[in-house]
Amino acid sequence: MLGEIIATGTELITGRVADFNARYAARRLHEAGLEVQCITMLGDRAPLFQEVLRQGLARSRYIIITGGLGPTEDDITAAAAAQALGLRLWRDEALLARIKKCLEERQIPWEERYARLALIPEGAVVLDPGGSACGFSLKHNNTRLFFLPGVPREMQLLFDHYVLPSLVGWCGGEACLVQRTLRLFGISETMLQEVVSRLAVFQQGVTVGLYPNFPENHLTLTLRGQDRQALEADMERLIAALAREVGDTLLGPEETPLEDLVGRLLRAQGLTLAVAESCTGGLIGHRVTNISGSSDYFRGGVVSYSNEAKMDLLRVPEETLGAHGAVSAETAVAMAEGVKKVFRADVGLSVTGIAGPTGGSPEKPVGTVYIGLVTPRGVEWFHYLFHGNREEIKVLSAQMALDRLRKELL
Amino acid sequence: MLGEIIATGTELITGRVADFNARYAARRLHEAGLEVQCITMLGDRAPLFQEVLRQGLARSRYIIITGGLGPTEDDITAAAAAQALGLRLWRDEALLARIKKCLEERQIPWEERYARLALIPEGAVVLDPGGSACGFSLKHNNTRLFFLPGVPREMQLLFDHYVLPSLVGWCGGEACLVQRTLRLFGISETMLQEVVSRLAVFQQGVTVGLYPNFPENHLTLTLRGQDRQALEADMERLIAALAREVGDTLLGPEETPLEDLVGRLLRAQGLTLAVAESCTGGLIGHRVTNISGSSDYFRGGVVSYSNEAKMDLLRVPEETLGAHGAVSAETAVAMAEGVKKVFRADVGLSVTGIAGPTGGSPEKPVGTVYIGLVTPRGVEWFHYLFHGNREEIKVLSAQMALDRLRKELL
Repeated sequence: MLGEIIATGTELITGRVADFNARYAARRLHEAGLEVQCITMLGDRAPLFQEVLRQGLARSRYIIITGGLGPTEDDITAAAAAQALGLRLWRDEALLARIKKCLEERQIPWEERYARLALIPEGAVVLDPGGSACGFSLKHNNTRLFFLPGVPREMQLLFDHYVLPSLVGWCGGEACLVQRTLRLFGISETMLQEVVSRLAVFQQGVTVGLYPNFPENHLTLTLRGQDRQALEADMERLIAALAREVGDTLLGPEETPLEDLVGRLLRAQGLTLAVAESCTGGLIGHRVTNISGSSDYFRGGVVSYSNEAKMDLLRVPEETLGAHGAVSAETAVAMAEGVKKVFRADVGLSVTGIAGPTGGSPEKPVGTVYIGLVTPRGVEWFHYLFHGNREEIKVLSAQMALDRLRKELL
Repeated sequence: MLGEIIATGTELITGRVADFNARYAARRLHEAGLEVQCITMLGDRAPLFQEVLRQGLARSRYIIITGGLGPTEDDITAAAAAQALGLRLWRDEALLARIKKCLEERQIPWEERYARLALIPEGAVVLDPGGSACGFSLKHNNTRLFFLPGVPREMQLLFDHYVLPSLVGWCGGEACLVQRTLRLFGISETMLQEVVSRLAVFQQGVTVGLYPNFPENHLTLTLRGQDRQALEADMERLIAALAREVGDTLLGPEETPLEDLVGRLLRAQGLTLAVAESCTGGLIGHRVTNISGSSDYFRGGVVSYSNEAKMDLLRVPEETLGAHGAVSAETAVAMAEGVKKVFRADVGLSVTGIAGPTGGSPEKPVGTVYIGLVTPRGVEWFHYLFHGNREEIKVLSAQMALDRLRKELL
């Protein structure tokens, strides 16, 4: 059951923008067990579009076409497709009325060019999400064609609501699809691959997609069947099984980044946080404050890029720095204690390390990182040796610090 | 003079990774005035690859193929292409020797599968960048074919060194290509479009590509001709003309991010920096410390997410906060003065604002941002109203603060 995607738009073949639509559709289809055999990106020339469309009809059971449905002269998709398929282009009066109403509501004056939006091949079925751009679908011989707008938000809406359910139902005879994407951190891709192979044993028919997303791994689980309620229950059991396998490396659903999880835990436990950052340079604070409402639990931080700052602002004793160095367990703990104190917070979190490429030594090579964590429950420190370039070491250090805090709060 | 790109790799049609190679090549070719009419992404099945290759030969004067040149069973490109073109696949002994030498140097033991790497279609010319993966090129009827590895770094190297110069020389009869990509900030895309149209008048034959790259705009200038030295001189004049048009919104070359420019200016003037961040949450410190060696001029920062922190750590007077509020010019200046003092730095830079989505008021809506800047030359503050979501407002605020500092140091 092979299909393909045709993405149109001059911006794609001049490299001006990265393709979003084709990749989105390809990923969703793959997760649903449907195979995309090729993706073609084109400009707005009718002859080449028609050639590729005809080739697609000869080799694919479904074709998803994105872009070229707008009101301008460049928007050739509907007319070119009608011609290639030997269909008459006709005006869908219901669609036209809907477009006029929509323009009125947005107080956009009518222009004749909007009439183009209602011209579709005869026999096509309008895909109308309500309040957003429409697409249409049609069947030609043995192939289903879906025409979607090029604006990613609009495309995604129609794809999720019409295209995927329709293809899943048609291909598998199974109407329902339940899907979850989960974040994991602290487990290697290789180990995760092994876990995934065990999952397939646990739950028959599950499709698993593994997407490395530095520094995390994302896992998409897909179940298909007739009964949504049963599938949802299966999915819950599957996620519980996964959690048993991967332990607390399972962060949670894709929609909730690590800093959001940490924020929720702090809020639930009525704790406030302050951070002392050396090699991460402010990245932890930046991530924590990406969450709306973080001012409820985040007191602030100090970026101490010099020994003086560590002493003056974080009250790290000069003897600690002298005896153990700025990159040490003792300094990390003193930084966490200091920042907790000066911000009058409940939790102090610190990072000190060597992000490189310079500054390493045989005893403390580039990538050496210490994390300090002081909570009402006590004092901890952690030592890591990360590999990567400066930016990667910063990202890993910040992620690990936030994850240590998460684990402590769990 | 139309061409096309075929990118192979299962990860592309399952949406597992975003395409880099095709977009990179398409952008570079477009900037050089060569048109890519379509991009096709495929898995590793020989029949479909051969079908698309034959279609490409019928419609394109050049085809760039990426991926599938490795040593595994999945790497079918060379053999499948040879078959489709009716060419014998033969072993290039010089290439084989080079591969063996390369493996030896890296202390990787020889395996029989590496011999696949030396199998190329007869008549193909090896593209050898030295010390990195090879590709090959060949001419078939009127079409030039370039086969490049799928690893982006390797592909990019060969594309820049062989493919682009060869195509530019072949198509235009013009051997040289001089290209610069520049960063701009603080000028709208619309205004930049106008400037671009004037540039074309100033320098005949220039190709200009405009790439929005939030919060910056990037501009690629391309000149082609016979004489490299003359082109380089023309390019310098062109950039000078652009600088006159856009003033200090021109940041500099693509390779140098704003935080690097600021760092260079601080270093050259022997100045040290400390930052006080409220709504940016640490993003400015994070960006400044992305530059290796920034510890030479960056003393550190305070993320003051509460009024207490502003008073305790930054010595912002309680009366200032009381009379004007945390988001005000007075507080911004006091924060910059305070952070300069506590870090004993030469320059204090501060940001205080409302990133939203909550916290706005009719007088100070979401997006209200004040920047304070204290240098040996004096005290300044700036007031902005940014539009966007929380993340965009943070990014814009950090960028604007760094840019204000850059302009002050210029």
